[in-house]
Amino acid sequence: MQFFSSKFKLGILGGGQLGKMLLYETRKWDIHTKVMDASPEAPCKISCNEFVQASLMDFDAVYNFGKDVDVLTIEIENVNVDALEKLENEGVKVYPPTKALRTIQNKATQKLFYTDHNIPTASFTRFAYTSEIEDSISNGGLQLPFVWKSAQFGYDGQGVKIVRTPEDLKDLPNVECIAEQLVDFKNELAVIVARNTVGEVNTYPVVEMEFHPEANQVEYVICPARIEDEVAQKAQQVALQVSKHMNHIGLLAVELFQTQEDEILVNEVAPRPHNSGHYSIEASYTNQFEQHIRAILGLPLGKTDSKVAGIMVNLVGSEGHTGNVIYENIETILKMDGVTPHIYGKKQTRPFRKMGHVTIVDENMARAREVAQKVKETINVVSN
Amino acid sequence: MQFFSSKFKLGILGGGQLGKMLLYETRKWDIHTKVMDASPEAPCKISCNEFVQASLMDFDAVYNFGKDVDVLTIEIENVNVDALEKLENEGVKVYPPTKALRTIQNKATQKLFYTDHNIPTASFTRFAYTSEIEDSISNGGLQLPFVWKSAQFGYDGQGVKIVRTPEDLKDLPNVECIAEQLVDFKNELAVIVARNTVGEVNTYPVVEMEFHPEANQVEYVICPARIEDEVAQKAQQVALQVSKHMNHIGLLAVELFQTQEDEILVNEVAPRPHNSGHYSIEASYTNQFEQHIRAILGLPLGKTDSKVAGIMVNLVGSEGHTGNVIYENIETILKMDGVTPHIYGKKQTRPFRKMGHVTIVDENMARAREVAQKVKETINVVSN
Repeated sequence: MQFFSSKFKLGILGGGQLGKMLLYETRKWDIHTKVMDASPEAPCKISCNEFVQASLMDFDAVYNFGKDVDVLTIEIENVNVDALEKLENEGVKVYPPTKALRTIQNKATQKLFYTDHNIPTASFTRFAYTSEIEDSISNGGLQLPFVWKSAQFGYDGQGVKIVRTPEDLKDLPNVECIAEQLVDFKNELAVIVARNTVGEVNTYPVVEMEFHPEANQVEYVICPARIEDEVAQKAQQVALQVSKHMNHIGLLAVELFQTQEDEILVNEVAPRPHNSGHYSIEASYTNQFEQHIRAILGLPLGKTDSKVAGIMVNLVGSEGHTGNVIYENIETILKMDGVTPHIYGKKQTRPFRKMGHVTIVDENMARAREVAQKVKETINVVSN
Repeated sequence: MQFFSSKFKLGILGGGQLGKMLLYETRKWDIHTKVMDASPEAPCKISCNEFVQASLMDFDAVYNFGKDVDVLTIEIENVNVDALEKLENEGVKVYPPTKALRTIQNKATQKLFYTDHNIPTASFTRFAYTSEIEDSISNGGLQLPFVWKSAQFGYDGQGVKIVRTPEDLKDLPNVECIAEQLVDFKNELAVIVARNTVGEVNTYPVVEMEFHPEANQVEYVICPARIEDEVAQKAQQVALQVSKHMNHIGLLAVELFQTQEDEILVNEVAPRPHNSGHYSIEASYTNQFEQHIRAILGLPLGKTDSKVAGIMVNLVGSEGHTGNVIYENIETILKMDGVTPHIYGKKQTRPFRKMGHVTIVDENMARAREVAQKVKETINVVSN
């Protein structure tokens, strides 16, 4: 197929920041794109060839959107999979395949998948309703503390809560959920696996999430992770196992725990470009967005090595600020070497909303880490 | 001024490939853009916020286009400068400044500028009409061979001819022109200088154009140039002199000759992102398009060093092919490490038309050069 000519059409469900960064690459290769998003202010609205405003959960909207595209992909998992399945059955190439997407969409199913395929993951119990958990605690079937996760549609920390006392269960929605063992981890890691339509597979280097010592919030995504080679290899092997058994196509971002005993446990996966791969735009030979396009179009995968050390800092809305966004001190961070801000284009900020990210690259990791800290201490996402 | 919010508007005259690559960066920073181009199929038509279809040489069109933008820039020199001057007088920030643009637009004026400022350049004679040249040859005022250049609107080798015999003058247009001494050069080099609105200046490394041994056509743009440090420093010094005396703002691409005696002579300049800087997208800490935006918005300039060695190969239409474009064997070059094609999105190819470029990066220059040769031998821009 000639992707690099006008006969081909790529559909993307979701028009947020991930879709926007995918569009840098479709523009680079002049690939015709059609994007759907519920918001009239979606960052993708420009840069795509066609834009459709509709809900990603609406069966008819998704089905009608996908009928005239050659390849259909997603930038977010929360889409109507029934419509995707119908399209897939009618010959549209849907990547990730709907089977993998269904497994991932439901966290209980996802966890069962790991167990079924002997993929190491924290032990867990599935509950049809949150209300069943209290009984399980009373009769000794479940020990406190644990991590409660809603089975459906958790995204960016939504739908996740650490439960230390029965009190903590009170405000949780009464839905299908899992109670997962709290992992005492040394590091939180991630590996992005790329797999194309003809089965070629490649992994990116292991990245490390560095947490704020007090706030328990990811502050930096660091590539490569500052861990032993042996641990890194194990992490990549586990990620490859997940990819293989899921038969996924495109990118699969595998989030992992490195335990105190250097075990590797799968936390969860996302079948698309991922926040943990944003560093690749500036640091890698092939950035994750180009790689996703290569994979779903059946093109040869690109080299996943890094040119330089890369660190990513998320730009999230500051607490106490809701309204028209201002990126305070952005000109100060532009003075620092190897610093590239990405502004997603959302007009309104609110506390903790992802508004952009900043990549810091340097041939020396220690220096990159120093600059990253300065960036973090300098820039503020506020409202006027 | 808050560039990173919705109050600011950047105007770009010209919607071709350079504009398109500028738009990657305005999208990255969510800067509101308005683009004008005569073609309804301009590559910039998507990715900008507003598109106006009109001739860049039309006074009224340019003036009306520029009235509501905060900063106005160009991706091509052939624009109506009178309209720009009127806008400049009315308070629109026009970069490059119209004074520099006028100097550059006319090659005779440009050459006189070098002479006036003691900037080394090949000796030349200005003629009001090509027809005056024959007299000058007959009376011994001008020696053959020389390079004939039209004073106005030469672009991409148009309006330039090597004159070896009086016969060669026959088909040339009877216009204002210069006859320039033919330089016996060892290397053709280029230096991109960035200068922002507050006078901060930075230069990119010297690049080298490698020519095909027989066809006398640039095959590769190589960064860094494989020349002695001393020569590179001299080239950068000369480029800085041109920038300083022109008081330009934005990017200035300075094309240079390195003579057999290692003298550096200025060939010509372009006050905008330039083909010789395309390698920077993949190889540099700050690519030339982001740097141009930093410069014209008065932001701090970014680091111009390279992360890795970079080589650029232009994708031009093959001889004998006119029509709907096909990029033959593009999938083969995608298998090679560190290879990134850029497809400009022109639907029709014709012989020698610039349709895209390919960047090859590697930590090792010799290896990059080998891959570049394979790329060149593999890909073909043809029609179906």
